[in-house]
Amino acid sequence: MKVNGTHYRSLWWDNSKDALQIIDQRWLPHDFCIQQLDTLSDYANAIVEMRVRGAPLIGATAAYGMALAARLDASDAHLNAVWDQLNATRPTAINLKWALDRCRAALLPLPVDARANAALSLAHAISDEDVEINRRIGEHGLKLIMDIAKNKPEGEPVRLLTHCNAGWIATVDWGTATSPMYHAHDAGVPIHVWVDETRPRNQGALTAWELGSHGISHTYITDNAGGHLMQHGQVDLVITGTDRTTRQGDVCNKIGTYLKALAAKDNDVPFYVALPSPTIDWTVRDGVKEIPIEERDAREVTHVQGRMEDGTIDVTQVTPLETSGGNPAFDVTPNRLVTGLITERGICEASEEGLCDLFPDLA
Amino acid sequence: MKVNGTHYRSLWWDNSKDALQIIDQRWLPHDFCIQQLDTLSDYANAIVEMRVRGAPLIGATAAYGMALAARLDASDAHLNAVWDQLNATRPTAINLKWALDRCRAALLPLPVDARANAALSLAHAISDEDVEINRRIGEHGLKLIMDIAKNKPEGEPVRLLTHCNAGWIATVDWGTATSPMYHAHDAGVPIHVWVDETRPRNQGALTAWELGSHGISHTYITDNAGGHLMQHGQVDLVITGTDRTTRQGDVCNKIGTYLKALAAKDNDVPFYVALPSPTIDWTVRDGVKEIPIEERDAREVTHVQGRMEDGTIDVTQVTPLETSGGNPAFDVTPNRLVTGLITERGICEASEEGLCDLFPDLA
Repeated sequence: MKVNGTHYRSLWWDNSKDALQIIDQRWLPHDFCIQQLDTLSDYANAIVEMRVRGAPLIGATAAYGMALAARLDASDAHLNAVWDQLNATRPTAINLKWALDRCRAALLPLPVDARANAALSLAHAISDEDVEINRRIGEHGLKLIMDIAKNKPEGEPVRLLTHCNAGWIATVDWGTATSPMYHAHDAGVPIHVWVDETRPRNQGALTAWELGSHGISHTYITDNAGGHLMQHGQVDLVITGTDRTTRQGDVCNKIGTYLKALAAKDNDVPFYVALPSPTIDWTVRDGVKEIPIEERDAREVTHVQGRMEDGTIDVTQVTPLETSGGNPAFDVTPNRLVTGLITERGICEASEEGLCDLFPDLA
Repeated sequence: MKVNGTHYRSLWWDNSKDALQIIDQRWLPHDFCIQQLDTLSDYANAIVEMRVRGAPLIGATAAYGMALAARLDASDAHLNAVWDQLNATRPTAINLKWALDRCRAALLPLPVDARANAALSLAHAISDEDVEINRRIGEHGLKLIMDIAKNKPEGEPVRLLTHCNAGWIATVDWGTATSPMYHAHDAGVPIHVWVDETRPRNQGALTAWELGSHGISHTYITDNAGGHLMQHGQVDLVITGTDRTTRQGDVCNKIGTYLKALAAKDNDVPFYVALPSPTIDWTVRDGVKEIPIEERDAREVTHVQGRMEDGTIDVTQVTPLETSGGNPAFDVTPNRLVTGLITERGICEASEEGLCDLFPDLA
């Protein structure tokens, strides 16, 4: 999508520099910094430190990491070691393992000297596929938005709520949850987006930045506000992303998603999840019981980063010096609270039957 | 309760200075600043700017404001004008109107020259009553905690979750939601408190400061985390405060309370509200439909105040410069989600019948 009128993807291969370029998202929405990844450590750090983030983008970054690995030493032993190194960077996003598995499975059968080129081509393909998947999610989600718009007075916006940033910078392009929004806006359907702040990392500020850059009307709200808004008829539709969705349609996503799903259920607001198929974990059934939840540094909770009055970016501590924080980074929304899953192949029920009907080849 | 070993109330009349002293809570938990209120503007500003906050403390402050008004000019016209001025400072806390009404009703029948002394005595009485009400809430709530403790292995803490700061600094002393916690701790019942951050003003940091000062084990978490914790059996009991509870037991409290009540219901976690009787609005039945919700300055959402590395207190902006924020400050939890109300007269069901049985003299 566009930044100051220029189209960007969240990562791209620069042929002249022969290296991957990423947007270092730690400084967004305040500064737009591009960084080149040169070493395997660069790749691992970019994921660990959340310079790149969002399940699909993590997957694409890992694929380029495998491409670099194959250039440096294409032996089975080295590729396996790098698989381990990169897979350990983040525990929740299933796309990470999906991309690493796909690269390894494609490369190991090849002659060693053919692997480097093949790996880079595959990383390009995975990136392009992500863009296409998200474009299709947008087309399917657009229909949901248009159905709601039809029942409103002419010109009255469809009011969506989203949590975290499942936007274009969390993918290679379009975003997952935001893709229907971009499609609606581009199709001339008036929308307004309630953007959850999404503590502790305030990724809602990224979503606000994205939507603002694209000219989409939105309001930034605390994570506490969504229930009240739904209670008062201010939300027509919730769409979130997901870091991992199980075979039976339980949705693991940024912490707090479960609370919004409960509020949506309590107020008969449709709650949809934008789900690219690489985010499905076919090996897991019960998300609440089976998915380990990443516990991140408490400093993310006790400290907040932002722009100071003088324009510098700095960090402020909200809590007393001696207070300890807890930071579970994800939660699981049981399928009973999910109205439907918006995939690249269409919309299905959040259930094993729903997913298997759409993806019989993967299930 | 204690600050650095010294017992404080949240406000007190200093006889030597002949004026009210408050703790200016805007700088907590970082700085502990005492301020003297000298003019009616000081009183109004202290409430508007949330130097004092919390429904019971707002009520007590307003009572002292009426006492100052009676000193300056005890005529009916002036007392009525100050009633209007102070009642307009915050729209949600019913204790404000309750205290102002009580003062006015007590003063107007008196000879004008007797009003100043009577008003100060009444403000003292309202403060002392608040302390006694909260002490009793603590005794009743303690039984709930002890009942849970009985079913746990010896020494394993009862894990409570609370939202916002319904602590001693939101009242004159003890707090409402925290009073059972202080009573349990003082009785030797091991507890651990999950403290919701409570965006946008992060009053959870005040609760963390209070609990830490009193030596109570606690963890500061984002508002997003509570649902996940309940889903995983990490919360035994939720206790929150309230700014206004209706005749039928609908609970208006800090924004986000409703989401925690939904999560408690979904996970069979008991959800109690600590309710001093002055916080009951007997004139309102359906809280969702009838209570107007205060919309506060969006800057509270887009900016965060905290302690910088060098120890100064400063504000940082989380969002892009051009992002607009929404800031509904309260929400209403319908009585169907409330397990019970802990009042100074005992615990009752969140219903008209429950409240009328306990308070036939007020209903």
